[in-house]
Amino acid sequence: MTGGEIFGELYGTAAMRAVWSARRSVAAMLAVEAALARAEARVGVIPQTAADAISAAADADRFDLDAIAARANVVGYPVVPLTKQLAQHAGPDAGRYVHWGATTQDILDTATVLQAREALALLETDVRDTIDVLAARARQHRDDVMAGRTHLQHALPVTFGYVCALWLAPLPDHVERLRTARERVRIVQFGGAVGTLAALGARGRDVAAALADELGLRLPDAPWHADRSAFAEAACAVALLCGSLAKFATDVVLLMQTEVGEVFEPHAPGRGGSSTMPQKRNPIASEYILAATRGIDALVPLLLGAMAGDHQRSTGPWQTEPLALPQLFVLASAACAHALALARGMTVDVARMRRNLDLTGGLIVSEAVSAALAETLGHERAHALVEAAASTALASNRPFTDVLADMPEIAERFDRADLERLLDPARYTGDAGAVVDRVLARLSEG
Amino acid sequence: MTGGEIFGELYGTAAMRAVWSARRSVAAMLAVEAALARAEARVGVIPQTAADAISAAADADRFDLDAIAARANVVGYPVVPLTKQLAQHAGPDAGRYVHWGATTQDILDTATVLQAREALALLETDVRDTIDVLAARARQHRDDVMAGRTHLQHALPVTFGYVCALWLAPLPDHVERLRTARERVRIVQFGGAVGTLAALGARGRDVAAALADELGLRLPDAPWHADRSAFAEAACAVALLCGSLAKFATDVVLLMQTEVGEVFEPHAPGRGGSSTMPQKRNPIASEYILAATRGIDALVPLLLGAMAGDHQRSTGPWQTEPLALPQLFVLASAACAHALALARGMTVDVARMRRNLDLTGGLIVSEAVSAALAETLGHERAHALVEAAASTALASNRPFTDVLADMPEIAERFDRADLERLLDPARYTGDAGAVVDRVLARLSEG
Amino acid sequence: MTGGEIFGELYGTAAMRAVWSARRSVAAMLAVEAALARAEARVGVIPQTAADAISAAADADRFDLDAIAARANVVGYPVVPLTKQLAQHAGPDAGRYVHWGATTQDILDTATVLQAREALALLETDVRDTIDVLAARARQHRDDVMAGRTHLQHALPVTFGYVCALWLAPLPDHVERLRTARERVRIVQFGGAVGTLAALGARGRDVAAALADELGLRLPDAPWHADRSAFAEAACAVALLCGSLAKFATDVVLLMQTEVGEVFEPHAPGRGGSSTMPQKRNPIASEYILAATRGIDALVPLLLGAMAGDHQRSTGPWQTEPLALPQLFVLASAACAHALALARGMTVDVARMRRNLDLTGGLIVSEAVSAALAETLGHERAHALVEAAASTALASNRPFTDVLADMPEIAERFDRADLERLLDPARYTGDAGAVVDRVLARLSEG
Amino acid sequence: MTGGEIFGELYGTAAMRAVWSARRSVAAMLAVEAALARAEARVGVIPQTAADAISAAADADRFDLDAIAARANVVGYPVVPLTKQLAQHAGPDAGRYVHWGATTQDILDTATVLQAREALALLETDVRDTIDVLAARARQHRDDVMAGRTHLQHALPVTFGYVCALWLAPLPDHVERLRTARERVRIVQFGGAVGTLAALGARGRDVAAALADELGLRLPDAPWHADRSAFAEAACAVALLCGSLAKFATDVVLLMQTEVGEVFEPHAPGRGGSSTMPQKRNPIASEYILAATRGIDALVPLLLGAMAGDHQRSTGPWQTEPLALPQLFVLASAACAHALALARGMTVDVARMRRNLDLTGGLIVSEAVSAALAETLGHERAHALVEAAASTALASNRPFTDVLADMPEIAERFDRADLERLLDPARYTGDAGAVVDRVLARLSEG
Repeated sequence: MTGGEIFGELYGTAAMRAVWSARRSVAAMLAVEAALARAEARVGVIPQTAADAISAAADADRFDLDAIAARANVVGYPVVPLTKQLAQHAGPDAGRYVHWGATTQDILDTATVLQAREALALLETDVRDTIDVLAARARQHRDDVMAGRTHLQHALPVTFGYVCALWLAPLPDHVERLRTARERVRIVQFGGAVGTLAALGARGRDVAAALADELGLRLPDAPWHADRSAFAEAACAVALLCGSLAKFATDVVLLMQTEVGEVFEPHAPGRGGSSTMPQKRNPIASEYILAATRGIDALVPLLLGAMAGDHQRSTGPWQTEPLALPQLFVLASAACAHALALARGMTVDVARMRRNLDLTGGLIVSEAVSAALAETLGHERAHALVEAAASTALASNRPFTDVLADMPEIAERFDRADLERLLDPARYTGDAGAVVDRVLARLSEG
Repeated sequence: MTGGEIFGELYGTAAMRAVWSARRSVAAMLAVEAALARAEARVGVIPQTAADAISAAADADRFDLDAIAARANVVGYPVVPLTKQLAQHAGPDAGRYVHWGATTQDILDTATVLQAREALALLETDVRDTIDVLAARARQHRDDVMAGRTHLQHALPVTFGYVCALWLAPLPDHVERLRTARERVRIVQFGGAVGTLAALGARGRDVAAALADELGLRLPDAPWHADRSAFAEAACAVALLCGSLAKFATDVVLLMQTEVGEVFEPHAPGRGGSSTMPQKRNPIASEYILAATRGIDALVPLLLGAMAGDHQRSTGPWQTEPLALPQLFVLASAACAHALALARGMTVDVARMRRNLDLTGGLIVSEAVSAALAETLGHERAHALVEAAASTALASNRPFTDVLADMPEIAERFDRADLERLLDPARYTGDAGAVVDRVLARLSEG
Repeated sequence: MTGGEIFGELYGTAAMRAVWSARRSVAAMLAVEAALARAEARVGVIPQTAADAISAAADADRFDLDAIAARANVVGYPVVPLTKQLAQHAGPDAGRYVHWGATTQDILDTATVLQAREALALLETDVRDTIDVLAARARQHRDDVMAGRTHLQHALPVTFGYVCALWLAPLPDHVERLRTARERVRIVQFGGAVGTLAALGARGRDVAAALADELGLRLPDAPWHADRSAFAEAACAVALLCGSLAKFATDVVLLMQTEVGEVFEPHAPGRGGSSTMPQKRNPIASEYILAATRGIDALVPLLLGAMAGDHQRSTGPWQTEPLALPQLFVLASAACAHALALARGMTVDVARMRRNLDLTGGLIVSEAVSAALAETLGHERAHALVEAAASTALASNRPFTDVLADMPEIAERFDRADLERLLDPARYTGDAGAVVDRVLARLSEG
Repeated sequence: MTGGEIFGELYGTAAMRAVWSARRSVAAMLAVEAALARAEARVGVIPQTAADAISAAADADRFDLDAIAARANVVGYPVVPLTKQLAQHAGPDAGRYVHWGATTQDILDTATVLQAREALALLETDVRDTIDVLAARARQHRDDVMAGRTHLQHALPVTFGYVCALWLAPLPDHVERLRTARERVRIVQFGGAVGTLAALGARGRDVAAALADELGLRLPDAPWHADRSAFAEAACAVALLCGSLAKFATDVVLLMQTEVGEVFEPHAPGRGGSSTMPQKRNPIASEYILAATRGIDALVPLLLGAMAGDHQRSTGPWQTEPLALPQLFVLASAACAHALALARGMTVDVARMRRNLDLTGGLIVSEAVSAALAETLGHERAHALVEAAASTALASNRPFTDVLADMPEIAERFDRADLERLLDPARYTGDAGAVVDRVLARLSEG
């Protein structure tokens, strides 16, 4: 996202950008190198004094990032220049033990694991907060009637609490997916050149175990230099989460339309302001949720494709990960932050909801009429009759109630008062309230 | 995959194609309609006789598929013409109770769930068989030495058992992912027009519960017409699985190269035969695994994008699912079937593996030399020396051992016999055997 | 799109499906084999009698497709069994000259070229018709005022003719892109095993030239077995076209909303009908345009990725083409057909457009006020004042005009009549009419 | 590509990153604002003194980027804070004329056009240089024989010049596509809020024309706020180009394998060096070409999807462009630069090519034998015989020539000397030289 800095945090939060910044990436690699030194000292592969010196030297703030970048251009990866600087900082005695028995990808992968773990935790926090806020919204608006819409047409009445519950319902599973992904990704990478720890002789596995312990990671049965499923799964979990946030944003964008006006993004002075049209309130947060999610969806195949690596460490596919993974998390941070802000600050116009519901003069509950008639006329006949009435109402711009009342087959079964009662939208929210109750109950269980 | 029929089962097995065939799709929808009728009879919403008649009439073989398709063109979906035929088959008394209280998407979604459940089970069977076969391979070749390769260069020795173990290692997690996806997707969809079951009054939830029971599905807290995470998650699980199969195929394609010739696809007369070059053995199965996986990866964003639907039932995104989901499963069936056949039938040339390993005259274990030297010279100096020797060997085409033996710094530390022993590749497989053992042990645990 | 048959032509027209059907694919391959025989007879490589017999035998209706498919499973491609059947039909004397000097991919690629040429022409016809229809619409509604919307908010007035002109404007370039793609893809593939025509000795190039001539194709300088840019470019051209159609569909879906109701899809009895809600008019055509376009967009990376093939004929990437290319065209046929039907049959409610325009009580022209004020107050002050008035109007639900009239800075510059005149939306369509005129003028030039 | 800085220029050149940097993006927007002021002064909309002051103030180095970013967070876009700073720099008299009649997207889009124009030119330069270098390579190696490979198997002999010609052949069309894209994208965006230039009254079109003139851009017939085809087409052109570069990289990666060793990436000390294996020469440039191209392919659907915007300026899809477009160009710059460096510096081992060709003991020309025999035995019988001989040779590890010589049907037609002559690979490069000549001739024409 070059050039994107002037977009501020619209495409990613400062906190998440920090996790994947050059400085923090170097810090993560240094944390791995230092932990490796300590692990090797614990197992007796290198002297404890060397481990101490390396640990002390592994301070990212002392490293020359430009020099690392310049040398990465030549070598192909930043690890060699980084270890060279680390060895210099550690001094000649300790310096020769830096990166002992490791391969470039051991360091890069384990560092990425540390960053991904932090990134997944950041997202989870936002999602959990969003769940709480949406739960309160669902409770508050449990019985506020509005038009339910399918294919962007009024269909049947629902409540805004129900709509909030539908936004909320998939989120607890997403939290679970994030946690599963975090647990699967929490693995140390340490195998040396081809994953066999050949350089460390009999003590390789012990070093690996100690390294995992130092970093709070799991020790997998096999090296995963060429098994990228953990990162790809994390990407999928994040994309699935953002898919549900994009559904939320899609609804808000539509509910905020001038002609609908039922829900509004939170307003700050200048927010969503047009440079030319003072009356505008653009759905900025929602737009960036949608854009971020599309960006994420596009990155998922990159991470899936990176799985098809060759042999013990791969040639090309793997190189897409440093491109795709940080960006995916940064975009997800934007989606999550915008969604949380939206859930917290959105303004709801309950009166407008009710007015919109009445826009179609009872047409919205025509299914109910259809169902009522179906009991005596059968489904098909009822459907046909009501469709005819609806067509007439739409064509003639007469209220649906009036048209129905004029139909002999209807008139002989219902008087006007019955019809009007029958056509009161508030009677037809069906199971909406119970859906809200169940979704909220599940939260308190979970 | 129009026109693809002349490619036989190369892009999908007959069994999986059958699951998603027009006839079976109709059968699945009919199974839902019939189960709905029975459920509604159990709850007392419709007469038991109607339910019996509808169940009896719901035989896909009696349905006119062309008529459904022709009418779908007009209506936009196949459900209305299908229910019309069902009502006709059930007779006028029962026919009026067909599809009672349901909406088009209730039927389509629940039918898709039934098909997806079967599809996931088919894939799981193939993966489990592949695990068994690869486990036997890993055991058999545990100690057969070959070149480990990174960046497509010889790196350090490994064993073919180790390579098999790396192919195998991610598969148990994929089985778990398929099962999680199967459990998450095992949900009934039943909510009527906007998910509120408005047409069924107080008995809606009981009908939904009875319907879930009839079909062996879970009853979710809320309708999921506009929450597509279950299907998207299933797609991710399948894509993750195929990513690992594509890694297997990538390796086989490379190992089967004329210049490598270590592993070969199973051969049948004419298999992978060229129309013009009789000597060719093309890696057909692997090529189709790779193609299928790329196809699957491309479909994943479609299913993720379908999550961003609008309101209670969506306008456009959802319509990508009938396009993407069946195809994703069909392609996955090809990948799984080819992978299983490959694992079962591949031919291994252990002697060639050893010959290739010796190709570089000891260069492949230069790291070991580097490591040995590092103990006295330090990592950097050792690395520099060995790099120089390697450059000389490569440039002069002299055996690496000879070049090393001529270097004073080396000669003063190692005699020729030591050097040759030091450079025997078979000594440097490190942890490879233990990796095999651990991966196999995990299987017997799981 | 397995299982998709019950969706009729919603995801692809019968005409386009026919182009890529198994039967027509076989016919295209046979056309190439027959043309090759004739070309070789012309050059004197094979006897004319053999060419005649092969040409006569190359009748797709006589071929057993199931047998081809069954054998393709083993061989990996349908060409070997197809040539075997062709040789049988041609008889023993001629049969031995079938496929002379060609490789499997020569036949598959050239056949695909023939089909792609036809497919591109089909799409072009629909686009040209759509241009004509939209041009008439733009002319007809040149001065029908409606709300212009940005970020789904009322912004400034436009006309419906202007909206039609915006839908229309990109289409002529798309026609040009389709033609460029058709010209680029119109290339014969004929090179034998590695593209060198080795089997034909000195006469190879002459045969290639004669073959191109027989089929009405261009003869490229080099074989393109491993240069897939022509197909990938065709895919891009089609995707770009459908991108513009998706913009059209997006607008229609939004304009058709219950709360907007300005434009409607053409209605046929049952069209877009809900199975339960008789009042519904779902935007079926638009939804399938959107779904098809998303499907197409997902396929483009597959065809781009197929470019990265290995060596002289590739291993895996190429196999994604038979998967992606036919499907891309089939989906595009749906998008084009739905778009044409939509352009032809859509219903426009000009009165509703005007009513919606007045919804905001003049707010929609606040920019004009802002601009008018800017002349004396400067841009920023004017913007601030009008923003304040808009906020007040929105918050208090008072007409914008009234709020403005009450502001001292405004009142001292404009009397009430001036203000009302200033706020008449019909005055602010600016360049809209001229845009229509220019877009239409360009058409008559082109 | 957050965090990517430590990868230096591996994922993008400094020159291209500069084009899309925050500073240069601001400079491009300022160039548009300044040109707009001058254009409006020319037409008489604003005073010349104001235009002069605004032009003088539009110096990106004086702008506070952090302040723009911070405010963009609130407003949703960087344009409002940028114009505010510009107005301050220009002073109160001129400041009020800043951004006169424009909308945010006018500035963002036209600035992006300026950057895209420069970016496309940068890529074109590299491609043209690559063409020159590859042409020299093709000429130099016109007759150096090597194995042609299909499905990663030896197929028939080719020459390395031919291989270079195949890498080269698609590039001139890509240059043409870049130019077409550059011409199509070279369009000014200027329409105000809804594209109708309403704020400028009758002089709007004149201002637009003057603005286009100031910036050296074309003036389109209609605004293109919601027609994103020009950017999407540019993305496609770039992706198509990189597809061909990825094919080049794929071949180099494979040719550089330890077991093949025919072509090597240029070597600098440390280049592609392993941190642990001194003998390694990793194909770094090729790997990053492949990774960049995959990244680009993933971005194309984002830009295609951005076409489906709503109404006059869109809500979400458009916001993916600032995410995707700069990144696509940056990645392409990496692919182009690596490809050029590769073409320039690659090392070719002609002797190894010849040795590899002989690896299969004549098997590689079995097609030629097949063809020769076909003249008397018919295609099928010859194919069968030679396939049998090949199988025997492969199974028994005997030279193919010997096996053939022992077959009665062969022996009665060819003596041993004939056979050996027949099996000399150098005789079977067919049209390869002529392909080189034609591809080179086309270059001198173009």
